[in-house]
Amino acid sequence: MSATSSDRDSAQAVAVEVLHCKARAVFQPKADTLAREEPLEIRVRGRSIAVTMRTPGNDRDLAAGFLFTEGIVHQRSDIVEIAPCLQNDYPENVLNVFLAPAIDVDFERLTRHVFASSSCGVCGKASIEAVHQNLAPIESETPVTSRTLLDLPQRMRAAQRTFDRTGGLHAAAVFFAEGGLVGLCEDVGRHNAVDKVIGQSFLTDQLHLDRHVLLVSGRASFEIMQKALAARISIVCAISAPSSLAVEFANESGQTLVGFLREDSMNVYANPTRIEHV
Amino acid sequence: MSATSSDRDSAQAVAVEVLHCKARAVFQPKADTLAREEPLEIRVRGRSIAVTMRTPGNDRDLAAGFLFTEGIVHQRSDIVEIAPCLQNDYPENVLNVFLAPAIDVDFERLTRHVFASSSCGVCGKASIEAVHQNLAPIESETPVTSRTLLDLPQRMRAAQRTFDRTGGLHAAAVFFAEGGLVGLCEDVGRHNAVDKVIGQSFLTDQLHLDRHVLLVSGRASFEIMQKALAARISIVCAISAPSSLAVEFANESGQTLVGFLREDSMNVYANPTRIEHV
Repeated sequence: MSATSSDRDSAQAVAVEVLHCKARAVFQPKADTLAREEPLEIRVRGRSIAVTMRTPGNDRDLAAGFLFTEGIVHQRSDIVEIAPCLQNDYPENVLNVFLAPAIDVDFERLTRHVFASSSCGVCGKASIEAVHQNLAPIESETPVTSRTLLDLPQRMRAAQRTFDRTGGLHAAAVFFAEGGLVGLCEDVGRHNAVDKVIGQSFLTDQLHLDRHVLLVSGRASFEIMQKALAARISIVCAISAPSSLAVEFANESGQTLVGFLREDSMNVYANPTRIEHV
Repeated sequence: MSATSSDRDSAQAVAVEVLHCKARAVFQPKADTLAREEPLEIRVRGRSIAVTMRTPGNDRDLAAGFLFTEGIVHQRSDIVEIAPCLQNDYPENVLNVFLAPAIDVDFERLTRHVFASSSCGVCGKASIEAVHQNLAPIESETPVTSRTLLDLPQRMRAAQRTFDRTGGLHAAAVFFAEGGLVGLCEDVGRHNAVDKVIGQSFLTDQLHLDRHVLLVSGRASFEIMQKALAARISIVCAISAPSSLAVEFANESGQTLVGFLREDSMNVYANPTRIEHV
């Protein structure tokens, strides 16, 4: 029942023994594998700006993606270095992000809640307007075919290595509009998975992703759409359902939003004109 | 493609028309229903302490559950009143929580990250220890039968009214150890669903839930286990996988943790002795 530190363990997964009950038979011991969850603290200029429960792996990508999708950094050169904090007993769980001196960090805004103080009150529309003050809607065309989109879930699934073992991880993948996989990241947190895969492109200086598709393994929320917009991703697909605010956000931001992309079918919730039926 | 304000809309769901593509056929218009997502701001003593993207409904329960599982309030009488903020253009999206005068609110701790500054560093073990400084592990027995647990998913599913229409909501349900449903709440956010169902019991003065079972529709994480411990819930079940830290937390907190509770089978990850095989 307790985690063993056998060599089956890895950064992302932990081997355990559980009691299994099937078809109401008596409990039997069974080997199982858990997705790892550990805190990661992100520090900027000596101050803690976020602690997130994440699956270890791609931590630099996560930190960079978080700072980028939160609007703190805008281009690769804004980040000088990302390094573990050696003063900590668990240095891999604390990352110091060293920013270029010219970068202005509004620590107040980071600890406040970004969408809280809109002049027109607290509502979905105001939340969208607050994002658009920093991020313009997308106008690019980026055509994609329905055939390409319908093939993406299978491609993502094939690349989800840790999910296969644990069943416990969200995934986010970036594809070229022609269907080729750019990158895939897994995490116990769905927002972390998106930050990681976007941060990966950010750190390799492959932004903007304006000819790309983001596919998430779960649902599409306001925050997922906002992170995609920060990376200029114009086509967002979800294996599961979108929320009302995700659809509203996509409509207002010029993003194509596809939901329930699975088993050879899909629903298009916003801006369908980018999708050519083939 | 845009949300209509027809009478099919409700607080929790919005009717839309989408383009549907099945078996690679051409796109056809189709009616669909989205889970609503809107911001909720929680204010205490005039200060904003949290903004969460939630599905409207059970908002007072959500605010109370959040304050309770965050350790701000401990008993029903700590909350005098919860009322919409009428100064806001969307009063239903801003709740003022009026606390008893004696309640001490550490605003610094709320905006800081609770588990960030442990003396032994940032790691899962330190996160668990930080929780245990405020919440003692559970020692009660609370026996439950395997048959009761195996029947819970079906009971929860039958009560998930908005999920049926949208496919887009998490659910959290509290059951008596004998299997009767105490309450069920749905939300686009999994933590919100748990806060709502725990807050519901809190506001009706039914705490502690020490002879109860919490069932969540998704995965079990560190934070879900922590919220259950705040309500003294000793048996937590998840339809999907637990994380490594959820299992570690359950072991250290005396909580029984069941995962993959579905299709007449389950895995027990921690403290199996509460479960009698029947």
